[in-house]
Amino acid sequence: MASQIPVVVNGATGKMGREIVKAVSQAQDMTLIGAIARNPNHVGEDIGEVIGCGALEVPVTNDYEPMMAMLSQEKQLGVVVDVTHPDAVYGNIRSAIAYGVRPVVGTTGLSLAQIQELAEFADKASTGCLIAPNFSIGVVLLQQAAVQASQYFDHVEIIELHHNQKADAPSGTAVQTAQLLAELGKTYNPQLVEETEKIAGARGAQAEEGIRIHSVRLPGLVAHQEVIFGGDGQIYTLRHDASDRTCYMPGVLLSIRKVLQLKTLVYGLEKIL
Amino acid sequence: MASQIPVVVNGATGKMGREIVKAVSQAQDMTLIGAIARNPNHVGEDIGEVIGCGALEVPVTNDYEPMMAMLSQEKQLGVVVDVTHPDAVYGNIRSAIAYGVRPVVGTTGLSLAQIQELAEFADKASTGCLIAPNFSIGVVLLQQAAVQASQYFDHVEIIELHHNQKADAPSGTAVQTAQLLAELGKTYNPQLVEETEKIAGARGAQAEEGIRIHSVRLPGLVAHQEVIFGGDGQIYTLRHDASDRTCYMPGVLLSIRKVLQLKTLVYGLEKIL
Amino acid sequence: MASQIPVVVNGATGKMGREIVKAVSQAQDMTLIGAIARNPNHVGEDIGEVIGCGALEVPVTNDYEPMMAMLSQEKQLGVVVDVTHPDAVYGNIRSAIAYGVRPVVGTTGLSLAQIQELAEFADKASTGCLIAPNFSIGVVLLQQAAVQASQYFDHVEIIELHHNQKADAPSGTAVQTAQLLAELGKTYNPQLVEETEKIAGARGAQAEEGIRIHSVRLPGLVAHQEVIFGGDGQIYTLRHDASDRTCYMPGVLLSIRKVLQLKTLVYGLEKIL
Amino acid sequence: MASQIPVVVNGATGKMGREIVKAVSQAQDMTLIGAIARNPNHVGEDIGEVIGCGALEVPVTNDYEPMMAMLSQEKQLGVVVDVTHPDAVYGNIRSAIAYGVRPVVGTTGLSLAQIQELAEFADKASTGCLIAPNFSIGVVLLQQAAVQASQYFDHVEIIELHHNQKADAPSGTAVQTAQLLAELGKTYNPQLVEETEKIAGARGAQAEEGIRIHSVRLPGLVAHQEVIFGGDGQIYTLRHDASDRTCYMPGVLLSIRKVLQLKTLVYGLEKIL
Repeated sequence: MASQIPVVVNGATGKMGREIVKAVSQAQDMTLIGAIARNPNHVGEDIGEVIGCGALEVPVTNDYEPMMAMLSQEKQLGVVVDVTHPDAVYGNIRSAIAYGVRPVVGTTGLSLAQIQELAEFADKASTGCLIAPNFSIGVVLLQQAAVQASQYFDHVEIIELHHNQKADAPSGTAVQTAQLLAELGKTYNPQLVEETEKIAGARGAQAEEGIRIHSVRLPGLVAHQEVIFGGDGQIYTLRHDASDRTCYMPGVLLSIRKVLQLKTLVYGLEKIL
Repeated sequence: MASQIPVVVNGATGKMGREIVKAVSQAQDMTLIGAIARNPNHVGEDIGEVIGCGALEVPVTNDYEPMMAMLSQEKQLGVVVDVTHPDAVYGNIRSAIAYGVRPVVGTTGLSLAQIQELAEFADKASTGCLIAPNFSIGVVLLQQAAVQASQYFDHVEIIELHHNQKADAPSGTAVQTAQLLAELGKTYNPQLVEETEKIAGARGAQAEEGIRIHSVRLPGLVAHQEVIFGGDGQIYTLRHDASDRTCYMPGVLLSIRKVLQLKTLVYGLEKIL
Repeated sequence: MASQIPVVVNGATGKMGREIVKAVSQAQDMTLIGAIARNPNHVGEDIGEVIGCGALEVPVTNDYEPMMAMLSQEKQLGVVVDVTHPDAVYGNIRSAIAYGVRPVVGTTGLSLAQIQELAEFADKASTGCLIAPNFSIGVVLLQQAAVQASQYFDHVEIIELHHNQKADAPSGTAVQTAQLLAELGKTYNPQLVEETEKIAGARGAQAEEGIRIHSVRLPGLVAHQEVIFGGDGQIYTLRHDASDRTCYMPGVLLSIRKVLQLKTLVYGLEKIL
Repeated sequence: MASQIPVVVNGATGKMGREIVKAVSQAQDMTLIGAIARNPNHVGEDIGEVIGCGALEVPVTNDYEPMMAMLSQEKQLGVVVDVTHPDAVYGNIRSAIAYGVRPVVGTTGLSLAQIQELAEFADKASTGCLIAPNFSIGVVLLQQAAVQASQYFDHVEIIELHHNQKADAPSGTAVQTAQLLAELGKTYNPQLVEETEKIAGARGAQAEEGIRIHSVRLPGLVAHQEVIFGGDGQIYTLRHDASDRTCYMPGVLLSIRKVLQLKTLVYGLEKIL
């Protein structure tokens, strides 16, 4: 068991935290050694019982620092996976790094300035830290394939489809895909004709560099993204469908393994693929 | 050959007319007996040679009335298929009916008043006349299936995708689909959350009764329509892809056969399916 | 509350039963008055607590007959929804009908002879009974739209896609769709060329009347069916995606409402749409 | 005009050759200087007139060697694009290289031994030569993205869809995609359950390393390939749709530009992307 990675999950009783507890406890090369929840309801209970996957012999705690201290005393380098509220994340990361613990963090809530500060802090401590706004390897693969395709296609539109409980449109991930394509220094979709919208909005959102994004919202959908490239006589389509949170687990486990090899802060799952 | 339907194609050298000439000349139960073109370039030439499918022994003419006179003298009732410019269509139909010839017309260019007048004229003459803004049986089937589904689904969005030479958005066919759904006296897509467009247009065009239409324009596309119904735990999608004008031929041939059984003006291919 | 439909769910603690308990208890026009489970573990507990949706004040029982007796004494006609093991269903239905209770049954496990016997029994008692091998309204709509389309298209193939825990291929639903199309007395997919399979199985399963079915099995899929019609220059696709059991609830609730108007046994959800 | 690439098209009156003549004559950086056809019918006629795109002042010839001689005398290095019958290709390539002319060849008809010989011949002459069994950049992008995805997904199936005039199944391109994935030294689709085909062929063709290929054949389809990766809670789909031969032109033009920079034989469009 000496070569196992000791892992603490912070936010263990939340929707994402529960999946991570399950995934870590089933991973051959990891040992779950702590489960932190802000909510005091379950403190002292076995986290496995709380989330309904059988006893894991790890009691829930709401005390962060002792967990970091414990991780720092493990022979093997320890990792804390943080899926708590954005408000708490900045402080949590600093504290973890101060203990020599590697944080793996899934949040979009940090400002650029905060990320910069944390990067400097991790640098000084030579401690790896991974922040991923999106743990979906599938989405990153789609984005990388889209960037590759954009070298050969000048026309592209994005359709993203989500359940109708999502308030914002377009989705953050679709906007990010458009930004990645726009960064290549190219303007897409040169017009052949003067377009007219007979009903406003028909042609979708105009993102950067001429890229259009269309947002569909329906019950029965979960989270889907389609990038459609067009050229004379051909269409090339990349589509990712996420149907539940288990789709993020390969990205979380990969992040835990990779953060041990890092000596600095890395932002974005795509950097470690 | 007595039971064959004699057919004249008006607009025979245009893109649609050429396909109709081919389809009619290959149909077992029809005989092409005339080909009219406004443009005098090919007058006197064999229409089969002009369109490149081998001699059909039907010379191109640009004289409409003699053709109607000829059709009216056939033992079997005659049909004229009219795919000429919208300007000419109204007069052509009146003239055909006056000769007792059944017109099959593919146009969106007639006003409601014109259609009403032609209907009265056809009624008085007890002569069938079929006007179809769209000869695609596939599109009509999709629309009928969508109307059927709308009885059981309260959420629906439409995506239509066309080549980037199309100037207008949304497409007329997609707007028509939305109208057919809206006519059922139901408001779709009741909102669960207050939606925010971070980039204007993301949520598409708001058609009648809450239905959204999204218009994608890319080279490599031809003419595609997707109607997506959503409910808890399920999605039901109807999609039609047209890749060339041959897709309209079954609708044209069906119209020729059916117009012979009519004694009045019928508007819309869906009425004869 | 006089106009409410009293409902008992048999098999209430199973996966499907749990969803039905939730759906019935949330329906404005129904009252859940009983919950039966074969397994004695939860007897006496509140079914709402057992399935985690809050107290419903309906204790779990494993005694079937008293529930039927209770339903038969309601002023309003009562319905029992049966989603138990196929072995038990036949006896359950007879017993319910004997009490004047309307059964709504989701099973594929009854033989034709059994269905025939139950139909005669329901006839004599003038008691409605609805047996549906599939409660998905979406699938029935797809099948009806496919039957409609098959009048105009001679070429069709079916792709069904399921999670990789499904052992059988093709899926029962896809085979049923093929049968519905085959019943129209038409042979599909007349061949233009002599086809060669360079690797056996490439062209899929040959179902009745020339229809091909292709079965895809992957993790991340749930239950999907695609019927693709092809004609010159066009493709018409019908697709249903089921992502969880909630998709069956509209069909279950509709069945409960409709069975009250029946005086005989009806087999198949499509009969009441 | 000094910097223009002089190009001869061999097989100029065939279906592919016609498109290449058009594409080359419209490319800003190329000059069409010859058009060779085996069939003597059009010899002496302007190739532009023959293919219906207006005079190009290049007469059709059926004499190969003089064209190579002419190309070899151009200041700028010349390219011959060869889309003739597989029988003729080997000799054509040797002859072109002997003249110092760069061949760009679209064929699948050469044996490994022939390719090896031609490679040695090109090496000795330090003359670039590009042989591409497939000029579709879109397909190559799809295959590259699939190879990338296969590092993170263990489950994948391929659906290829073609018109019903195609005799062979699976398509060569789909088999090639499966081979590229199989070469990574990994077995795909480990089974969770013992699968049973109730109708033979349902689960498709078993290609190398557990990959399944399903071949759909319908009128209205052209050439389509879909690679579907599955993982827990997610599906990642890559799809390419080719609707006409113009989709190959970007690959042909890119090949003409790149072959000038080569000093050896390169096999496969993917090598120059």
